[in-house]
Amino acid sequence: MRSAVKSGYGQDCPVAHTLDIVGERWTLLILRDLLRQGPRKYQDLETSLVGIGPNTLSARLKRLEEAEIVERRFYEQHPPRAEYVLTPKGRALGPVLLALKKWGEMY
Amino acid sequence: MRSAVKSGYGQDCPVAHTLDIVGERWTLLILRDLLRQGPRKYQDLETSLVGIGPNTLSARLKRLEEAEIVERRFYEQHPPRAEYVLTPKGRALGPVLLALKKWGEMY
Repeated sequence: MRSAVKSGYGQDCPVAHTLDIVGERWTLLILRDLLRQGPRKYQDLETSLVGIGPNTLSARLKRLEEAEIVERRFYEQHPPRAEYVLTPKGRALGPVLLALKKWGEMY
Repeated sequence: MRSAVKSGYGQDCPVAHTLDIVGERWTLLILRDLLRQGPRKYQDLETSLVGIGPNTLSARLKRLEEAEIVERRFYEQHPPRAEYVLTPKGRALGPVLLALKKWGEMY
């Protein structure tokens, strides 16, 4: 199911649909970290993404959860502590990140 | 040569370098149109990218020219009329667009 589009391009095109979900600033770098390093806590992401504001990081993670690209997994109950994990839909973005990486290495 | 980074992520990572150049809103859709439809005039892009403001379109094209991803080609001299064409460096972004498209078709 496609999730609700926020500030989307409003185009009936698969590229635009993908960018509606992952095209905002920082989102692809969050996904890069989760793909490369596996499950991450909020603090891990805040540390690796130097310059991201906490509000931005929270908003991006919330959007990715709503789109079922990441999910929160509780690894401790008392007190509750969660980490973010890619879903299969999220892991399917691997080729996008790989293509961005290859171009960045080339130029 | 890597072009000057404007409001970039400042990370020494090929994914971040690529996004420094093509990660701004609308940029990948401009590249999609040039890849799919070939050389485009400014007006063609303004028509196909519904909702983009003229200042944004100009700024994105200028950035892409600076990064040597697109170039302006004059197809008429009097009066001067130009169209935007992908360079080889720009066409090398094809796999990024293809990966975004495939994911968008899948989900």
